[in-house]
Parts: sequence; structure tokens; C-alpha cells
Amino acid sequence: MQIRTATRSDADAVWHLLQPVFRAGDTYAVDPEISKDSALSYWMDDPAACYVAVDAGQIIGTYYIKTNQQGGGAHVCNCGYVAGVQGQGVATAMCAASQTQARALGYSAMQFNFVLTSNADAIRLWHKLGFDTVGTLPNAFDHPALGMVDAQVMYKWLAD
Amino acid sequence: MQIRTATRSDADAVWHLLQPVFRAGDTYAVDPEISKDSALSYWMDDPAACYVAVDAGQIIGTYYIKTNQQGGGAHVCNCGYVAGVQGQGVATAMCAASQTQARALGYSAMQFNFVLTSNADAIRLWHKLGFDTVGTLPNAFDHPALGMVDAQVMYKWLAD
Repeated sequence: MQIRTATRSDADAVWHLLQPVFRAGDTYAVDPEISKDSALSYWMDDPAACYVAVDAGQIIGTYYIKTNQQGGGAHVCNCGYVAGVQGQGVATAMCAASQTQARALGYSAMQFNFVLTSNADAIRLWHKLGFDTVGTLPNAFDHPALGMVDAQVMYKWLAD
Repeated sequence: MQIRTATRSDADAVWHLLQPVFRAGDTYAVDPEISKDSALSYWMDDPAACYVAVDAGQIIGTYYIKTNQQGGGAHVCNCGYVAGVQGQGVATAMCAASQTQARALGYSAMQFNFVLTSNADAIRLWHKLGFDTVGTLPNAFDHPALGMVDAQVMYKWLAD
């Protein structure tokens, strides 16, 4: 598996990964009806950088790195990850790479603003990769199957 | 003091309040060099609603209410407040009014994403007005005078 910067020609493959995740509306705080164009702007164009994970010529994961706050908060980035396959270490590899890339882009810390407690696999993985749960927002997400669920704010200092 | 919805003709007065706060760069996570147009878009146009506090015909405070997350998170709003005078209860009145207005706009909760621990007056006031500190982001803000300071995530459930 190789991780490389996404290009415009990856857009359809990236959308193929994002579409089912956004349409399900049960992990990302994104409008489930979001258009392809808006989703690709949000994921590929607005961030500081966007990457794809490629295995045997196929794009099996994607993530972005963007500045989380402006002004005095601009040294902290935010990332979002979508893996097209589970249990093969794709999310782990993407998050590890993103931490190195974030440092190279000049960021000192990484923050996840909104990780649903119902997404237990993600929380376990981010903890394993060095993130702290800074706080929990009660009933901050209306889950299509579970009703109101909590969301965690997670944070990791990257700089030495 | 009266609180009313802001109109386009309030733009110069709103900018007069925002400009020194944003230029100082020591409370809001906004680029201190932000242009007037970008600041007014951020404060007046992008949010769901923008209000001004008026006393004796003069605009002495302003705040916005906006959706904090999309999709399943869209029932939580975010607000920002700027008072032009201190110690006269302007911030208290604006925050109290915003909670009522947020309910009327359909929101169930209010979240402040980034309140600097160095802004002790604000934190004391938000606690007094029913907000909980959900978590603290270590060294999340590079303060022009104090160096790295922490930022708090604050949250209040508004619905009955």
C-alpha cells in the first residue's frame, strides 16, 4: 500500500469512497444529501492537503489535513479519514502518515473535533495512535439508528 | 438596551466593534489581518443569524448564531459575542438572549469551540450562564503576549 497526494484525476475514486459514508450519515457530521461537488470541495479543495492510499493500483482510502482554527489557533490541524476496506490497517497507516505530513506542513498538533462514541473502533484506534479524549459533548449527534449519541473531542500534540 | 437582528446598514458599526478584537488576536481564533469584507461575511452573512445590542441609538455589542456541525450534528449551534463596553452586562444580556433565539431557530444545544483559558472573565461568565467546560485543549492557541495558552470547549443543552 502506498500513500500519495491526491490529484484532480482521483476525484471519482475519492467520491466512490466518500459517498456511502456521507450518505449513511452515521459517522461524519456532514449533510447526508451533500452533492458530489460539495463533498469533493470539502474533502479535496478546502483542506491544506488531501491524500489517497493506493493498493494494487486501486484507491482504498483517502484523508485530508486542514487548519482547524485560524489566527493563534492555526498551528493545530484537523484530519478526516475514510477507508474503503476494514481490518487491513488502512486507517492506521493513513493516520500515522498524516501525523508525519502534518508536521512537515508546519502543524504542531492535531485535533479531531467530533468522533462519535458509537464509533468505538475509531476511538480505540485514535487512542492507540496517541490521541487523548479531551472531552465529550453530550447528545451532540443525532444518529439515524441510535438516536442521540455523544461526540468526543480528541487531541494530540505532534511537535517534539 | 435593546437587542435586535442586524441589518446590512449595521455593517460599519459591527466592523467598528470587531476590528479591534480581531486585530488584537488575543481572544478569537481569527486571522488578525482579516479584511473588513471577510470579517463581515464571517460574522454577519455565513451564520444563521446576527444580532446587535443597541443603547441610546448606539450599537454597543454584536453576536452571531450559526450551525456548529452539519448532518446529525446540526441541532447544536455556535455563537460568538463582542461587547464594545465592559462591566455593564452587555455580554450577559447578549448570551441570555442568544439562548432564547437559538431555541426559536430550532437548536437544542450551544457549543463554544474555543474559549481561551486566558480569557478568564468570559469563562466565568459562561459558567454562570449554564455552560459546562467539556474539555481543555492544551496549548491550542498562540497568544501574542502570553505564548501558548489552553482553549476550552464549552457546551450547554438548551432544550427542555
